[in-house]
Amino acid sequence: MIILNKQQILDRFDADAVTLLLKQGFIAFSQKQVQMPPVQHLLFAQANGDCCIKSGYLQGDDQFVVKISGGFYDNPAQGLASNQGLMMAFSAQTGEPQAILLDEGWLTALRTALAGRIVAELCAPQHIGAIGIVGTGMQARLHLMYLKSVISCRQLWVWGRSETALEEYRQYAQEEGFEVNITQNAAELAAHCQFIVTTTPSREAILHATDIQPGTHITAVGADGAGKHELAPELVAKADKILVDSWAQCTEFGEISPAFQQQLLAHLTLTEIGTVLAQNAFFRDNDQQITLADLTGLGVQDVQIVKGILGG
Amino acid sequence: MIILNKQQILDRFDADAVTLLLKQGFIAFSQKQVQMPPVQHLLFAQANGDCCIKSGYLQGDDQFVVKISGGFYDNPAQGLASNQGLMMAFSAQTGEPQAILLDEGWLTALRTALAGRIVAELCAPQHIGAIGIVGTGMQARLHLMYLKSVISCRQLWVWGRSETALEEYRQYAQEEGFEVNITQNAAELAAHCQFIVTTTPSREAILHATDIQPGTHITAVGADGAGKHELAPELVAKADKILVDSWAQCTEFGEISPAFQQQLLAHLTLTEIGTVLAQNAFFRDNDQQITLADLTGLGVQDVQIVKGILGG
Repeated sequence: MIILNKQQILDRFDADAVTLLLKQGFIAFSQKQVQMPPVQHLLFAQANGDCCIKSGYLQGDDQFVVKISGGFYDNPAQGLASNQGLMMAFSAQTGEPQAILLDEGWLTALRTALAGRIVAELCAPQHIGAIGIVGTGMQARLHLMYLKSVISCRQLWVWGRSETALEEYRQYAQEEGFEVNITQNAAELAAHCQFIVTTTPSREAILHATDIQPGTHITAVGADGAGKHELAPELVAKADKILVDSWAQCTEFGEISPAFQQQLLAHLTLTEIGTVLAQNAFFRDNDQQITLADLTGLGVQDVQIVKGILGG
Repeated sequence: MIILNKQQILDRFDADAVTLLLKQGFIAFSQKQVQMPPVQHLLFAQANGDCCIKSGYLQGDDQFVVKISGGFYDNPAQGLASNQGLMMAFSAQTGEPQAILLDEGWLTALRTALAGRIVAELCAPQHIGAIGIVGTGMQARLHLMYLKSVISCRQLWVWGRSETALEEYRQYAQEEGFEVNITQNAAELAAHCQFIVTTTPSREAILHATDIQPGTHITAVGADGAGKHELAPELVAKADKILVDSWAQCTEFGEISPAFQQQLLAHLTLTEIGTVLAQNAFFRDNDQQITLADLTGLGVQDVQIVKGILGG
């Protein structure tokens, strides 16, 4: 059994190779070739923390993967990262533990950002006057970094609640080669941007239906559990096409779930990323559509990024 | 983070200390002080294997525990153990991984056998002419070893399907100080024994209603998943009192679940071990009753045995 620490994991990480594996994983998932039991959740109210446990197996693989992923939101005050956890690989032939990846949450952040890059390939309009990033945290940074290779636009708007965090993000994005505008008014961001990514753990809508122009794409990453939402249900219902990582997860607890449960999406088909990838097609039909992608995160993404790190 | 291998774990294992922790765990579970999400199951048909993932947290503890526990039934042909897996402890304050216990399934086997010892303290009749063990595997051995300190009888009957396995078990039990009778006829075992433990992964009944005499106790350990059963439903329904580790698990997939689902147990109360322990009472009222205990295994047992090993 091998044990890798964060630096050893990052040294082995190849974004392009993992992106290909993630595409294969999305396709396999949509073709029902993946075992992915329901997520386990634990709550630690006294520590302002929670933990989720995911596992997955892609039929025919040599290994299966278990992920323990914690969020402990008082950690930063002690100088620790909020995201904690690890991933493990086990032999699917003998059950023996093969590898423990002490990634401190990085692999989850990376596979999420790379899923966003895949979405951009499928959904980005041809005309993008500016990219809009809602949120200033780790996912907001990684997402932008990986968008650069599929979107040539270098005009950026960033929304955040904290001026300090906005200034820090501006610094980061400038070093990545962007011309950066910061704002605390999400409608202002939406008025300028045709490709928007929402990355916050917000529990109330940040963007509303009237904010969004025709020809805009929105990737919603923040909603990964019940109660987390960044988009008003009426905005979701205004989309011309909706892409989901998992029909089941997105309608249950994803960004689109309130709109779905209020039956505002009856006129739309919810299409899985894996279905579009299997057809080798673009999702967007023209530059007037509003497209929306809802990413809740799949166990098969963990399976595939571990495969990419281990070279399995 | 510390990593312990099997030998280091066994060196730290103290059966009496862990038994006390298990009793506290059963009580906490029955008092609803334990978070125990539904078990995750993965199947590996091509390898004749399966894996279950359990997690648990006892409110107020400093740590929570995740267990990955595999059964790969073709492993012995390759010289590997069928039981594979590990347990992990994480801080309930920060989410940081604290310990990985590479126990190869031993901690599960040990905490199950010690639960059997706790059941014996609560249920064993005063008169035991012989102990009966159904099965010849690891659990059949560990269970017997730990019964010795609570049951003084040293007459033993063992049932198995394989003569070779029976002879090997006889050797083992003789070294433990027992006078051993072996049989391939379970009714013969039941005719001689007042304390019976069933430990097989059988999917068909081994013991039937007419086999069991008044004044007998049966501990059923083998049924830990849907479809596994060692006792005929009519035998279960013949019990005067039934003890369960978890009402929810036992009625869903335990040994008693077919009888329960066929509504054969309507005249009985199913009592949790933790409830009896909290009352500091015996479960058996007299030496004429038939008592039955159904052990499906609880995540809190994993939490408590890890605590015992780590000294937390």
